[in-house]
Amino acid sequence: MLVGDTADVYLQRTLTILRNESINPVVAMEFSPQNAGVFCGITEARVLLARILPETGSEVWALEEGEAVGAKEVALRVKAPYGSLGLYETAIGGILSSNTGWATAARECVDAAGDIPVVALGARHMHPDVAATLDYASIIGGCVSCSTIQGARLAGVTPSGNMPHSLPLLMADTVKAVQAFDRHMPQEVPRVALVDTFKDEAEEALNVARALRDRLRGIRLDTPPERGGVTTDLVKEVRARLDLSGFRHVEIMVSGGFNPERIREFVASGAPVNTFGVGTYLACASPNPYTFDIHEIDGRPVAKRGRTPGITPNPRLGRVM
Amino acid sequence: MLVGDTADVYLQRTLTILRNESINPVVAMEFSPQNAGVFCGITEARVLLARILPETGSEVWALEEGEAVGAKEVALRVKAPYGSLGLYETAIGGILSSNTGWATAARECVDAAGDIPVVALGARHMHPDVAATLDYASIIGGCVSCSTIQGARLAGVTPSGNMPHSLPLLMADTVKAVQAFDRHMPQEVPRVALVDTFKDEAEEALNVARALRDRLRGIRLDTPPERGGVTTDLVKEVRARLDLSGFRHVEIMVSGGFNPERIREFVASGAPVNTFGVGTYLACASPNPYTFDIHEIDGRPVAKRGRTPGITPNPRLGRVM
Amino acid sequence: MLVGDTADVYLQRTLTILRNESINPVVAMEFSPQNAGVFCGITEARVLLARILPETGSEVWALEEGEAVGAKEVALRVKAPYGSLGLYETAIGGILSSNTGWATAARECVDAAGDIPVVALGARHMHPDVAATLDYASIIGGCVSCSTIQGARLAGVTPSGNMPHSLPLLMADTVKAVQAFDRHMPQEVPRVALVDTFKDEAEEALNVARALRDRLRGIRLDTPPERGGVTTDLVKEVRARLDLSGFRHVEIMVSGGFNPERIREFVASGAPVNTFGVGTYLACASPNPYTFDIHEIDGRPVAKRGRTPGITPNPRLGRVM
Amino acid sequence: MLVGDTADVYLQRTLTILRNESINPVVAMEFSPQNAGVFCGITEARVLLARILPETGSEVWALEEGEAVGAKEVALRVKAPYGSLGLYETAIGGILSSNTGWATAARECVDAAGDIPVVALGARHMHPDVAATLDYASIIGGCVSCSTIQGARLAGVTPSGNMPHSLPLLMADTVKAVQAFDRHMPQEVPRVALVDTFKDEAEEALNVARALRDRLRGIRLDTPPERGGVTTDLVKEVRARLDLSGFRHVEIMVSGGFNPERIREFVASGAPVNTFGVGTYLACASPNPYTFDIHEIDGRPVAKRGRTPGITPNPRLGRVM
Amino acid sequence: MLVGDTADVYLQRTLTILRNESINPVVAMEFSPQNAGVFCGITEARVLLARILPETGSEVWALEEGEAVGAKEVALRVKAPYGSLGLYETAIGGILSSNTGWATAARECVDAAGDIPVVALGARHMHPDVAATLDYASIIGGCVSCSTIQGARLAGVTPSGNMPHSLPLLMADTVKAVQAFDRHMPQEVPRVALVDTFKDEAEEALNVARALRDRLRGIRLDTPPERGGVTTDLVKEVRARLDLSGFRHVEIMVSGGFNPERIREFVASGAPVNTFGVGTYLACASPNPYTFDIHEIDGRPVAKRGRTPGITPNPRLGRVM
Amino acid sequence: MLVGDTADVYLQRTLTILRNESINPVVAMEFSPQNAGVFCGITEARVLLARILPETGSEVWALEEGEAVGAKEVALRVKAPYGSLGLYETAIGGILSSNTGWATAARECVDAAGDIPVVALGARHMHPDVAATLDYASIIGGCVSCSTIQGARLAGVTPSGNMPHSLPLLMADTVKAVQAFDRHMPQEVPRVALVDTFKDEAEEALNVARALRDRLRGIRLDTPPERGGVTTDLVKEVRARLDLSGFRHVEIMVSGGFNPERIREFVASGAPVNTFGVGTYLACASPNPYTFDIHEIDGRPVAKRGRTPGITPNPRLGRVM
Repeated sequence: MLVGDTADVYLQRTLTILRNESINPVVAMEFSPQNAGVFCGITEARVLLARILPETGSEVWALEEGEAVGAKEVALRVKAPYGSLGLYETAIGGILSSNTGWATAARECVDAAGDIPVVALGARHMHPDVAATLDYASIIGGCVSCSTIQGARLAGVTPSGNMPHSLPLLMADTVKAVQAFDRHMPQEVPRVALVDTFKDEAEEALNVARALRDRLRGIRLDTPPERGGVTTDLVKEVRARLDLSGFRHVEIMVSGGFNPERIREFVASGAPVNTFGVGTYLACASPNPYTFDIHEIDGRPVAKRGRTPGITPNPRLGRVM
Repeated sequence: MLVGDTADVYLQRTLTILRNESINPVVAMEFSPQNAGVFCGITEARVLLARILPETGSEVWALEEGEAVGAKEVALRVKAPYGSLGLYETAIGGILSSNTGWATAARECVDAAGDIPVVALGARHMHPDVAATLDYASIIGGCVSCSTIQGARLAGVTPSGNMPHSLPLLMADTVKAVQAFDRHMPQEVPRVALVDTFKDEAEEALNVARALRDRLRGIRLDTPPERGGVTTDLVKEVRARLDLSGFRHVEIMVSGGFNPERIREFVASGAPVNTFGVGTYLACASPNPYTFDIHEIDGRPVAKRGRTPGITPNPRLGRVM
Repeated sequence: MLVGDTADVYLQRTLTILRNESINPVVAMEFSPQNAGVFCGITEARVLLARILPETGSEVWALEEGEAVGAKEVALRVKAPYGSLGLYETAIGGILSSNTGWATAARECVDAAGDIPVVALGARHMHPDVAATLDYASIIGGCVSCSTIQGARLAGVTPSGNMPHSLPLLMADTVKAVQAFDRHMPQEVPRVALVDTFKDEAEEALNVARALRDRLRGIRLDTPPERGGVTTDLVKEVRARLDLSGFRHVEIMVSGGFNPERIREFVASGAPVNTFGVGTYLACASPNPYTFDIHEIDGRPVAKRGRTPGITPNPRLGRVM
Repeated sequence: MLVGDTADVYLQRTLTILRNESINPVVAMEFSPQNAGVFCGITEARVLLARILPETGSEVWALEEGEAVGAKEVALRVKAPYGSLGLYETAIGGILSSNTGWATAARECVDAAGDIPVVALGARHMHPDVAATLDYASIIGGCVSCSTIQGARLAGVTPSGNMPHSLPLLMADTVKAVQAFDRHMPQEVPRVALVDTFKDEAEEALNVARALRDRLRGIRLDTPPERGGVTTDLVKEVRARLDLSGFRHVEIMVSGGFNPERIREFVASGAPVNTFGVGTYLACASPNPYTFDIHEIDGRPVAKRGRTPGITPNPRLGRVM
Repeated sequence: MLVGDTADVYLQRTLTILRNESINPVVAMEFSPQNAGVFCGITEARVLLARILPETGSEVWALEEGEAVGAKEVALRVKAPYGSLGLYETAIGGILSSNTGWATAARECVDAAGDIPVVALGARHMHPDVAATLDYASIIGGCVSCSTIQGARLAGVTPSGNMPHSLPLLMADTVKAVQAFDRHMPQEVPRVALVDTFKDEAEEALNVARALRDRLRGIRLDTPPERGGVTTDLVKEVRARLDLSGFRHVEIMVSGGFNPERIREFVASGAPVNTFGVGTYLACASPNPYTFDIHEIDGRPVAKRGRTPGITPNPRLGRVM
Repeated sequence: MLVGDTADVYLQRTLTILRNESINPVVAMEFSPQNAGVFCGITEARVLLARILPETGSEVWALEEGEAVGAKEVALRVKAPYGSLGLYETAIGGILSSNTGWATAARECVDAAGDIPVVALGARHMHPDVAATLDYASIIGGCVSCSTIQGARLAGVTPSGNMPHSLPLLMADTVKAVQAFDRHMPQEVPRVALVDTFKDEAEEALNVARALRDRLRGIRLDTPPERGGVTTDLVKEVRARLDLSGFRHVEIMVSGGFNPERIREFVASGAPVNTFGVGTYLACASPNPYTFDIHEIDGRPVAKRGRTPGITPNPRLGRVM
């Protein structure tokens, strides 16, 4: 990224022109998201800024990672010689746009779920070059864990995940798959069984509970949409059948097409969910586009048409560099 | 990516278990998008598959890059030992999901624009790690050019871009900025002037036309939403005023919040646009989530509940590896 | 019904008054439905009229059972001395209103299903005093069979029905229930198995097919709404799994909340349904209210305010008595 | 009904099989309506149960006739040997479905009318075999009277009704018809005159009031839809014209297409209505479909897939047999 | 109007300034309506222009009175010294705006009515200073007659009108009122009777037909909204009852709340209307606001921002002065 | 107006008949608007009544000019010999309908604007014969000033208006136009400059402020819709740029397509508007149609069908003549 190849070509051209014209004033550039949301990406942006800004004479002011940000509120202000900053303004804008969009979507799910934890499963529908960043932003937004190892490392949490449908399919039997999992995984990995691969979920939940008994931490319901998806009644019925058979300790995780609206319906219905897994909603969250504009040149207030000249006051900003 | 850190943790665990159980059959895994769209990402996926699949005994079948794909149509089928493939299924799914989402959004704009070319300007709102990929997919979807140098290189086109608002701001005058641009840029870079930084667009368009005359290729209208955005009437009026003053050769490029619906309105109104620039719509396009499922194990038809066992026939697939 | 107790009390009073005043002209009374639909109930109405009208001097004109009738079209005209008819006008109106409402609902389902037969299962949600009449009207509307014995007898068809969920529940196993059914039922009763009582439908369908082999006529999918109901994908998957195992002769009947809209969706999706079972939609069909008015008294055209005096011409009516 | 002919044929077949297999456990069957409403039909269902259940060893628990019932709430639970109950489960379900649907519709009208009484006139659009039951259920729902003699007898009220339009038509004059009514009806029958048969309602109301003076109890406005139906302004005007002429004692009853929404409009407008007559809305009310499921077999909790095994606790149920 | 008191004060001030500055070029001013419609008002505008424009050196180009005009199409162009025209631009704009709005509304009614004539009755809800102009514009829009004497005179037609409800009220009887009308009106005034003042419309229609027989030209149905308004069924019934009594020659005029939508419903229903009377819809029609802008000054193309400089070509314009 | 030519022809005919029949009772005629609103027009109606009513024996009761009036509330009652009043009932109704419609529209704008004054600019889209009346009614509705000289005189206020776009166009420069305005206008006329004729509004606002400095009262933003219209952000930006340059005393007036909804949006956004100018919304306001009916004849309560006989009590009416 530092060689500027991912920069917009016009930025490169502009720097050439300014260099030729010997123009390199200190500018104040402000970054503001188009919509309200959860501010995210400043950690990553600071790493970039630390490498490009000159050692002295620059200032960076920003909101804190994970704070609420209003529509059009200034979330980041960089004062620096334009020559050091110009080539990277799209990169910084892109970092903030994507991260803020993802963290905001995660926050919506987390708010909808109330006290019930939410796990981020979005990586599978996102380009691998940013899948870990998506997971990081999801945790900033409030998710308790995520599915990728690298994303969890970035955010400082333990990754979460039990088994894909491939495992029971390859072992041709859910109970055998669960037993193999139990045999080969370290103790600290919780035993959570997928139960919708071959059989009725309620039936299979009892099967795996009978096989692992106290070592079974939970089951995951991931009924495909072709079969009507997970319903609140299914969760209640599986809970009741587990309880009737004495497996009150077995937790129920649900996944498959959950979004804030559907999470709210599940919470409102009283369905006894222990964990929500959210994937598509996070992966499909749009970036929250940031605008970035010069508001000061060598201390003079300026602005292009449509913007107000001069630094936009925002007492919530703290100096971070 | 090859070390698997961005993979979902459960895939890593699954591979450990299967290795311990000495299970490694040849599986047929099928990838299908949730929604109809423009298939994209196979070029990138093939690079990955070439490095992970064993030299013999594997098959890869796929649609061609840029082809239309139906909802739930199988777009990619990989037959390979599960041990070589399993860790990378989320990476492949993610590559296809993101690329297909972006290419589809680009195609919608291109279709709406009819004969008028569309340039991709989405990079500024997208994480820099995938901004070039977004540009690549936009060009697969039909855009004629894009803003990032690396994206243009991937897609084999010339990048496009004239100047940011920063340039006239830093030079304190649009005409001076355009003259500097003309002075320092190689001949092959088209002179296209931003005209909404300081003054009324129609007035400034005439100013820059008078300054560069025949060397001016075009002007770009990018009126901010705070000022009502670009309107069809503005384009018509600027065209008429340019023509009245003898600048019929000056082209008009528009940008700022364009999407298929708004492009269609402009085309239907007969506004004399020469190029549409589209940014936010591309950057905000959701991935088109792919499902990926095992349909065959060592030649036997299988499928998890909700799917049909056996390979899904699709005569449109061609063998690519 | 003949003693008039179910008549509106004001009709009884009116007859007392007219008798005391020695008024008993021949009237022409016309019955018209409020909405367009399938005319039904004339068979039953004729039985009643045959018992109440005098042997001579009356005329009854009507559409044929099962014919289309327009909104406000005259469907039945009775010319008779008012003294013989008056007490029964609400009974006749009620017979036509209920029957027409039911037959129309059945026709909507049948039209939606195209070539696929529809079976009427509405009795369970309808008062038993008219459940058989509902079944009769459903068959007039185009259903091929119905669930009640008496309804089938009225309509001259063979009743249809395999087993309730009670049977497998009481025998604690679906395969055992199907085998008992096979053991004790006469040959002419088709063997159709419910497969959603205990296990996954696809799994259980294969179980019963393996148990009865060629003697199994079909399976019935009746997945409860708590489990997402029957979906088009479920039908396709069960069909595919049956075919893969060589049970191409086993038919698939679906039931549970079907109505014309949902039937159309299933037909449009190409789901390989062999029979639709419709219950709630038929039972919940509203009567099509008939208005009935005197239009002639002793040959003179009359009408109350809001109606046109004199007999309403309708060449589609035929004399039936 | 007792011979089971109106039963679904599969129940008859099931009983044959169970008898042959010597299976006859005590089951707990629970009946629950699909939607919230006014529970109705238990009086009739108890008559049936009294004839079919064995003298000892059975229990029947239910809500009270006319109580509110929630969606999916258990409203009736029967514990009995399956052999005695099985054939009649659709009959019981049908009784409850139809009665509950009708009583609920009546309650909606009664609630809308506030302090103004509502009379049930639905029989004329309902099959005569259940017209009296419809009237009974309407009164359970809160109507003060009904039009059929038998319905009133079932519910223990006096039937209500004045005259059909036929009477003035046959006597060729509204005033003469009212005078004949007055001459021949017992004193306890209230004199209520239809006034829209031939003339303007306000004019005719004054005519009949002048003819019967203090003996006139009220007039009924039943303006046909072809003439715009009854409007709030018509009621107010007729009231004003009656009052101006000194007939303050004459009540105004309205009928013709009233439903809860229209009743609410009339009440809100302050139109001085003394009685609402409701017909079509009651007759066209859909049944509220009941589901009925076995939840216990010989004391063991069971349930088909989608339901929770074991008796559903409901402290609102009382033992009725 | 000529003294300019109704002009906007800023026009007066502008003329003062220009006179002091000795500026008085020939300008081309163009008038265009905001919405498509029926162009109207040019006749009146020409009278004004004839009095204010200098004898030579001016040109007036316009569409013809009653022609269709498109949205934003130039409908009038005046070339004249600004000093002669400036004070009157709002007056001309107002004349065109009001007239065009009214004529367009009339055309909508006339188009909806097809072959059935429409009479303009809007004056009663419009300020008397422009009531006649409203009637004039209604006739330009296609109405066959209007209610005011002066409006009819302007448009060169015979005014239309029979009697207000006041006449029967003052004579206390509709038949007497009609007979007095017949006694005192010249032969050429058609006898058309209002029939909804006291009695049922059908009854009163027969009464007046029996009283005037062949001298009765028609009856007018104007049932007030409090009584449900005029309905298609009422027209059909009155027609049928008139015909049954031999009064086929009596025409039916309807009025009261008619607008294009309701006229279309009446036409589509086949109700045998002979004339529609339209009042409120015409009176409540909004002006179609005209914009008026200078496009040329002493032959040079000019325009304010947002407009295109120079005369807007429109081959449909003809020179009218 | 007094010669009755603008009266409906049937009123003239009615008076002829009544004169021939020597019928001329004292009637009470009541005028009521169809919709709730701001009562207006009584001042003008009283002038008319003073000229037509006999010197004694008449009474006029009315609400006060500018008071709220309810739907169908009696707002004016005239008791007078029918012969003196009949010919003018449409004129009085028209005066009230038009004035009430306009005043109500003005009140909606004024209420939306809260503390910010509103100026009426509707004349330019209204027929000049009533343009001043529209302005008068707008001021009764709460506007602080209006654009026509005569309207302002009627309402007793000072007219308001600065310059049309014609002035800068004719002087070819906004600053020159403003300077000429300043040179030639009396001191008491506030200097308010149009700033959107040639250049960017913010740029031109600074230009005119620098030219007139303290003598500039305000600027008017009237951006055409072709350029996106006036936006809240434009107002904020112009305010900020004026303030940054030390022109805090310069007020901002906005106009161009304002209506209550858009005014509310501006107020809610906190855009620092000093005056709203409203034109089209006022000019396009529909009349509020009045019904007028005789309710008493020589002291006897009467009414046509659909109305209640006798005077409608309304304690809010005061005797005005």
